Amino acid sequence: MRPFRALVLLVASMGFATSPFLHAQDTTAQAIRAVLDKQVVDWNRGDLESFATGYKNSPDILFMGSKISRGYDQMLNTYRTGYATKEKMGTLSFTSLEVQPLDEHFATVTGNFHLERTAAGGGDVDGYFLLVFEKTPAGWKIVRDATTVPPKKTAQ
Amino acid sequence: MRPFRALVLLVASMGFATSPFLHAQDTTAQAIRAVLDKQVVDWNRGDLESFATGYKNSPDILFMGSKISRGYDQMLNTYRTGYATKEKMGTLSFTSLEVQPLDEHFATVTGNFHLERTAAGGGDVDGYFLLVFEKTPAGWKIVRDATTVPPKKTAQ
Repeated sequence: MRPFRALVLLVASMGFATSPFLHAQDTTAQAIRAVLDKQVVDWNRGDLESFATGYKNSPDILFMGSKISRGYDQMLNTYRTGYATKEKMGTLSFTSLEVQPLDEHFATVTGNFHLERTAAGGGDVDGYFLLVFEKTPAGWKIVRDATTVPPKKTAQ
Repeated sequence: MRPFRALVLLVASMGFATSPFLHAQDTTAQAIRAVLDKQVVDWNRGDLESFATGYKNSPDILFMGSKISRGYDQMLNTYRTGYATKEKMGTLSFTSLEVQPLDEHFATVTGNFHLERTAAGGGDVDGYFLLVFEKTPAGWKIVRDATTVPPKKTAQ
């Protein structure tokens, strides 16, 4: 048996050894992480329009920060207003991402975000979020976003 | 025709005049509001165990406040620790509740909460939340809870 074929058989048998449900969960988590990874790349090159495509293009989506905004257009406008320049956008990173599928159509994600910015850009921001993702014909998209920015801890 | 039968026919025709989907959405919203109404009643008579039954009894549920807790038991323990006495529980009310069905199995709810408490109980608390509800065999239950308590505005 040639090494290549042995590898194929090994991978195939590993696939069958895990349950189809767990495999589907892994696939969902990978697909959703890819959406968030792309959002980070889009943000960090200053492309809000492309970043926003991580959300479902629908009037029904909801973004809950200190106030609620609804719909794709309002969400994008809120981002455009708050992050009008590359300096205000800074450098985004997500950490502690955890994907929890609800069923085959919906999943939630929790995680932390960090925005590294110059003082002129507004300074660093840290927060955390709960997202609801929906599997749409265009792929997994955010349909609800609850993002919290706790007050900064000040030295005593 | 007797008045009673006329009323039955009127109600039946009203039901057929609306689309089945809108009717289902109304039913979902009513069922979910009933869960939240019951939670308020349970809380305000100091019954945390009964209040907690608004959540799905599962290790997979997730509560995101300033930190994340997972599972029914941890959620209940967090409530027991934070609200050990009737005075600390105070009087709960929900306002601005909005139910948004995702499909026939899941829905999200946004709203504000107000906790009226004596100074000794910890003082009043205001916050807002995004909940994910799942239609379980035991009825609509909370499976994700993102609750935010913004810092109090202080007079300048």
